[in-house]
Amino acid sequence: MSFSLIPALELLFTDQRVRTDADTLAHYGLDWTRIYQPAPSAVVFPKCIEEVQALVRLANQHQIALVPSGGRTGLSGGAVASQGEVVVSFDRMEALRDFNPIDRTVVCEAGVITERLQQFAQEQGLYFPVDFASRGSSRVGGNIATNAGGIKVVRYGLFRDWVVGLKVVTGTGEILSLNNGLIKNATGYDLRHLFIGSEGTLGLIVEATIKLTRAPKALSVMVLAVPELQGIMQVFNTCRHQLDLTAFEFFSEKALKHVLTRGHVQRPFESESPYYVLLEFENQGVTEQELALQLFEKAVEQGWVVDGVISQSDAQAQALWRLREDISESIAPKKPYKNDIAITIANVPPFMQALDAVLAREYPDFEVVWFGHIGDGNLHINVLKPDELAMADFVSRCQQVNQWVFDLVRQHQGSISAEHGVGLTKQPYLGYTRTAAEIALMRGIKQVFDPKGIMNPGKLL
Amino acid sequence: MSFSLIPALELLFTDQRVRTDADTLAHYGLDWTRIYQPAPSAVVFPKCIEEVQALVRLANQHQIALVPSGGRTGLSGGAVASQGEVVVSFDRMEALRDFNPIDRTVVCEAGVITERLQQFAQEQGLYFPVDFASRGSSRVGGNIATNAGGIKVVRYGLFRDWVVGLKVVTGTGEILSLNNGLIKNATGYDLRHLFIGSEGTLGLIVEATIKLTRAPKALSVMVLAVPELQGIMQVFNTCRHQLDLTAFEFFSEKALKHVLTRGHVQRPFESESPYYVLLEFENQGVTEQELALQLFEKAVEQGWVVDGVISQSDAQAQALWRLREDISESIAPKKPYKNDIAITIANVPPFMQALDAVLAREYPDFEVVWFGHIGDGNLHINVLKPDELAMADFVSRCQQVNQWVFDLVRQHQGSISAEHGVGLTKQPYLGYTRTAAEIALMRGIKQVFDPKGIMNPGKLL
Repeated sequence: MSFSLIPALELLFTDQRVRTDADTLAHYGLDWTRIYQPAPSAVVFPKCIEEVQALVRLANQHQIALVPSGGRTGLSGGAVASQGEVVVSFDRMEALRDFNPIDRTVVCEAGVITERLQQFAQEQGLYFPVDFASRGSSRVGGNIATNAGGIKVVRYGLFRDWVVGLKVVTGTGEILSLNNGLIKNATGYDLRHLFIGSEGTLGLIVEATIKLTRAPKALSVMVLAVPELQGIMQVFNTCRHQLDLTAFEFFSEKALKHVLTRGHVQRPFESESPYYVLLEFENQGVTEQELALQLFEKAVEQGWVVDGVISQSDAQAQALWRLREDISESIAPKKPYKNDIAITIANVPPFMQALDAVLAREYPDFEVVWFGHIGDGNLHINVLKPDELAMADFVSRCQQVNQWVFDLVRQHQGSISAEHGVGLTKQPYLGYTRTAAEIALMRGIKQVFDPKGIMNPGKLL
Repeated sequence: MSFSLIPALELLFTDQRVRTDADTLAHYGLDWTRIYQPAPSAVVFPKCIEEVQALVRLANQHQIALVPSGGRTGLSGGAVASQGEVVVSFDRMEALRDFNPIDRTVVCEAGVITERLQQFAQEQGLYFPVDFASRGSSRVGGNIATNAGGIKVVRYGLFRDWVVGLKVVTGTGEILSLNNGLIKNATGYDLRHLFIGSEGTLGLIVEATIKLTRAPKALSVMVLAVPELQGIMQVFNTCRHQLDLTAFEFFSEKALKHVLTRGHVQRPFESESPYYVLLEFENQGVTEQELALQLFEKAVEQGWVVDGVISQSDAQAQALWRLREDISESIAPKKPYKNDIAITIANVPPFMQALDAVLAREYPDFEVVWFGHIGDGNLHINVLKPDELAMADFVSRCQQVNQWVFDLVRQHQGSISAEHGVGLTKQPYLGYTRTAAEIALMRGIKQVFDPKGIMNPGKLL
């Protein structure tokens, strides 16, 4: 008797939770990369862990490839289904439950939207600190699968640091409850950390126990004009000895110009400068503002900084954040080719200088917009498409640029993907950051968890 | 031609760095558990990574079991060599180098003693926050292999959180440089986190890049008398909303009595109480002391606390710490049988009540001394040997007690080893915390990294 996929799925997912219409397939087959042709066989919407398990068992029997689908805000094609896969959407698994005020933990199903988790924490008088631009669409499961980072890492770390328990369905259909919300647990390999950042290739993340924390007291924002790269490092080093920085971001004058062009925000001060830093700190007591002003004066004396502004209200702080946060949207019409690389913080100036020189020499017609989370050594390199260049030609030329970028990344012992994952777009370049031995070991681990190779095949490895 | 172990080792480790004398074998074959008979074949002292790699290759060819040896301060037998293994001591690999003031990182060879790392940080005007009683003997490699915790976890996390790069030699003799000091790196499975806590069963940790941090400003210590368990939770919850706690420790009156008996320290105040908490917080500004006093008054009003004291100087703070830190030494003459369990923080009172009831019923002649890192849900349960009971009988009865303890741990979804690892002593009980499916997956991973099974065999799995 031959196996028929859709009826088999419909037995598991009743109430029209198997979708095969063209719109749904197109919508759920793509993430934010937009450069692939979506072509899944079906999209299913499980409501509980047991349904996910039943699906994985079916997929094992019949060698069905599964692609997990959260908010699909990824930029590396990790959630793309273009090979007839079945997409497993977590849209119907978005319960938040079992809030524990003593442990400050809450259990999130994989489909909980990041912003909902942040709001929930706020409703409890607490704080969930991992934050990034796609907060309104991205979902907890996807955040964990890619170990999301964002704008508060310098103080609060990565998504990894907030997962105290993880429930997964492995490639063989086993349900694992990993770590159960414990802080300390020295009983063998921490499989939780193996799943974090595994991009759905070992199994499906179905639920997480997330730690919350004390809400920060009043936050102040400073924006500083920094004439030289090395000055950024000096400012960073000086500030964090004195202040509990919650963010330390960087952007170039070119990036700022794109934001100002939209007309939503004003230049923060008259001086123009090739680089700017935005730093945010917590006012724990009454002394931080004063300290910040002293640091500013010192930075000006030393010539690291030529101008600056400090927020006097939450509204002003938010307005200053716009200068940094609106960059991506402002350059979107220029179809930027994005790279998201990481190096050690000390390597930021030499890396940027080397890359600027290469790009100016090899690609003088490309405008390169720099910004990033410099407190984490994480740079977003956006190459803007010249208006006259066709999209396909532009992408093809940018893929040539990749070789230059990634060669420099390797020379500086950096990472070709700081927080966007590997997915499809970075998979050919994985060897720039990980050795052949490491990749072979990763394949061995994949084989242990997913012997049939049905979990997000073709991604990462 | 037959293989002869010692001459082969002597070819690799010149200058008398292969030792087979009885004293050395006895010394390096044991950790702090003291209940095993040491019987290694030899002890070797590599000076560099390449020598470690050559040893592992030799061990692969000739199926030689290797046991890594740091400070051997473990309490679970993870570093015991009692089966003719070759002990790999990291005593000659204790270089600290490549301090990077911008990234605040330093590269440590596996043999660096914890306290040396702390001192080094201090010399740079920085801070290495992971701290525990064996700081003067334990070594970085062993700390990483067991993911050490200690007394500052509530603020600063575990050893895991401070390892930004890791160099290992796998069971097949591959050298891996994992993560290279990066903060963000989303390029596949984080093998660094897999090695942290793996107790030497996947390979040998040879070097780590360790992150340092800003030194805390003045620290204050409070000791509070708490009549009821539930009050501890209330105090904890209230305090950490207002103060940046750097420690939240707990001990019982029984534990305190043992410390006071030695005559080195005084009772902190007149009131006696079944439980005490010691909390430490950072004085970031000028307001924390005042806040702490307000919190104390509130706790007294609510009946959570009946008495208390706050340090007015560093010397006083250190004296108060003695009340908690001297417990282990004070009860040592009573040959305590130690358990080190973790549960979620909210589960501490019900767990303790349930265990107290069981122990009082089943083992009325045993004195049980409780203390622990309650802010992490980590309890040290010390059963003292009655004077009249022979040691062997005592251990055998305690192993019966284990069933009761671990049954309760499992019921509360806790961990049978919070920070001491599994090693030999907890290996028979691993199934109380990890499922059969998890253990099977761990074995699969072990097979990938150590196909010949030569890395610390018999430990953990």
